[in-house]
Amino acid sequence: MNTPNRLWRIASRPTDAVSRQNFLWAEESLPEPCEGELLVRVVYLSIDPVQRYWLSPDATFGPPTDVGMPMPGRIWGVVEKSSSPAFPPGALVAGPGIWARWCTLPVAAAEPVPDWPGIPLLAHTSLFCMQALTAYFGLLEIARPRPTDTVVVSAAAGAVGSLVVQLARINGCARLVAIAGSEEKCRWLREQLGADTAINYRTMDIGQALDAACPDGIDVYYDNVGGGILDAVLARINAHARIACGGFISHYDDGGHQQGIRNFQMLALKQARAEGFSCFDYVPRAGEAFDAIRRWHEQGRISYRAHLVKGLEQAPDALAGIFAGRNTGKTVIEVSPPPPENAA
Amino acid sequence: MNTPNRLWRIASRPTDAVSRQNFLWAEESLPEPCEGELLVRVVYLSIDPVQRYWLSPDATFGPPTDVGMPMPGRIWGVVEKSSSPAFPPGALVAGPGIWARWCTLPVAAAEPVPDWPGIPLLAHTSLFCMQALTAYFGLLEIARPRPTDTVVVSAAAGAVGSLVVQLARINGCARLVAIAGSEEKCRWLREQLGADTAINYRTMDIGQALDAACPDGIDVYYDNVGGGILDAVLARINAHARIACGGFISHYDDGGHQQGIRNFQMLALKQARAEGFSCFDYVPRAGEAFDAIRRWHEQGRISYRAHLVKGLEQAPDALAGIFAGRNTGKTVIEVSPPPPENAA
Repeated sequence: MNTPNRLWRIASRPTDAVSRQNFLWAEESLPEPCEGELLVRVVYLSIDPVQRYWLSPDATFGPPTDVGMPMPGRIWGVVEKSSSPAFPPGALVAGPGIWARWCTLPVAAAEPVPDWPGIPLLAHTSLFCMQALTAYFGLLEIARPRPTDTVVVSAAAGAVGSLVVQLARINGCARLVAIAGSEEKCRWLREQLGADTAINYRTMDIGQALDAACPDGIDVYYDNVGGGILDAVLARINAHARIACGGFISHYDDGGHQQGIRNFQMLALKQARAEGFSCFDYVPRAGEAFDAIRRWHEQGRISYRAHLVKGLEQAPDALAGIFAGRNTGKTVIEVSPPPPENAA
Repeated sequence: MNTPNRLWRIASRPTDAVSRQNFLWAEESLPEPCEGELLVRVVYLSIDPVQRYWLSPDATFGPPTDVGMPMPGRIWGVVEKSSSPAFPPGALVAGPGIWARWCTLPVAAAEPVPDWPGIPLLAHTSLFCMQALTAYFGLLEIARPRPTDTVVVSAAAGAVGSLVVQLARINGCARLVAIAGSEEKCRWLREQLGADTAINYRTMDIGQALDAACPDGIDVYYDNVGGGILDAVLARINAHARIACGGFISHYDDGGHQQGIRNFQMLALKQARAEGFSCFDYVPRAGEAFDAIRRWHEQGRISYRAHLVKGLEQAPDALAGIFAGRNTGKTVIEVSPPPPENAA
């Protein structure tokens, strides 16, 4: 246990695009767990758009992130030291960690990783995570698609969007339209995830593409991006449309200079609803979502594709890569190898 | 019955502000009711912001309004000719009419005006009308204020807003903030209608004024205007805030060059809801709203102030006046005198 730890500390707040310059690659001694804490060897680190938000000075949710502090992030790992019988050494654990090879986790915040046959640890990072709650409850409780609805999903090849598309297909809708940023992503969405149409917003005029894909207008929009795509959808909503506001990736990274939404008044004209939500509000109901997702996964109706990046040193670039659209599926850093029996 | 009729026909669609130039003052013979129609002498004509919207080429709700057609508007009047036992000559009637001294109403669309003691016909135009449904259901079903909430209402001295303020006071909230466009309106809102604070958006910085009036943030916003005030409210909403999108008066009149809403992403950040609605959806429940409003009116807890303009020839200027903020309370044209027993 003399291996020194490696971790990323916050060096500065990004003013526009996040980059490696905003982080400091620190070499430190192994953390010593206090009473009520676990020492965890990190296997997987979740890289999520919301982490960009945590770096902003006006972050209103998520952990406090002062310059100089370790960068927070959700981790899955192996318990190394523990005084808790619920988390013996060698047990798999998940929780709110940091961008580090080793970290401590308060037992109160640690979650056991269930040992489900045929579900490798990597599947947990994509299917049984906060993004899964965001997708599941945002679609089924906030947007509530009906069998006759046209459903549109943006950032559809991302961690949340790719689940939303599959859940919408399972739940049933008349027409399922996915928006993503490359031909390869669009092909995956059409051929593997069940989208009727996939729109590459980088090469197509979004308005014309939506007109062609949604001849009966739009009833449900699961919004992961905000900005111009949201405006184009708003212009085409039907009466009583529902917009689940899952995130605004197009706004995180622009230093606040986002374009305003010009079609907000469509909510009034169409008696439509736009509603934000937080996966944290649904944590008490996580079991319900995970049971359903696990069942559908076993039936082959839900798949996942992790954008797996090896090596903690890649974490800043991986975060920047989300905003450049380089990931398909969830971005996960493999910090250390998973136990062989839990490998994908 | 040889009196010629007078009516306003649509001469052109306004490209920005609506004005008298968009209407033609026609002199025509008295309309002859067909089978199933009533001939009505118009007493009061409702002048509402939505009428500006009816004049636009892309109107998606409300009656069709082609250039050359009579301008539509809700009327209250006296039945002059009828073959319907439900509407004998001399009966008071309300319904979807036109800007005219005399008009026909299909019996199927005509509504009897209930004979409630102490309620003059003018009170019906302000308290028992579509705007009352908009205020009642928009506040109580869409926004749903709670006793601890800070509630903000814009265009608060208008037909809808002045009812929303009083209903919010009756329903209960911790802090009630009204936004209007003159000192006189603000005084009325504070001294007569129960607002804790009234903000004159023409003379005050809306952001600073909201900061001062809402030290605990904003939980409910009843939006009648959209635009910059909506943006300023969005910047200050609390978690799980609700925005009732009642209308966007600031957008009707600008030829589509409205400023975009820059703080839409606050819905996601605050798990907030913005929801449009239409009073038409609540017509089946009108009795419930009108019973409550009538009871509170009799108890002295709801008052009204009509902006009464005499003479049908004033209708175009009265409509333009709404967008210039010249009305306090509902704008009503007195087209002909009410029956003495129904006079205010």
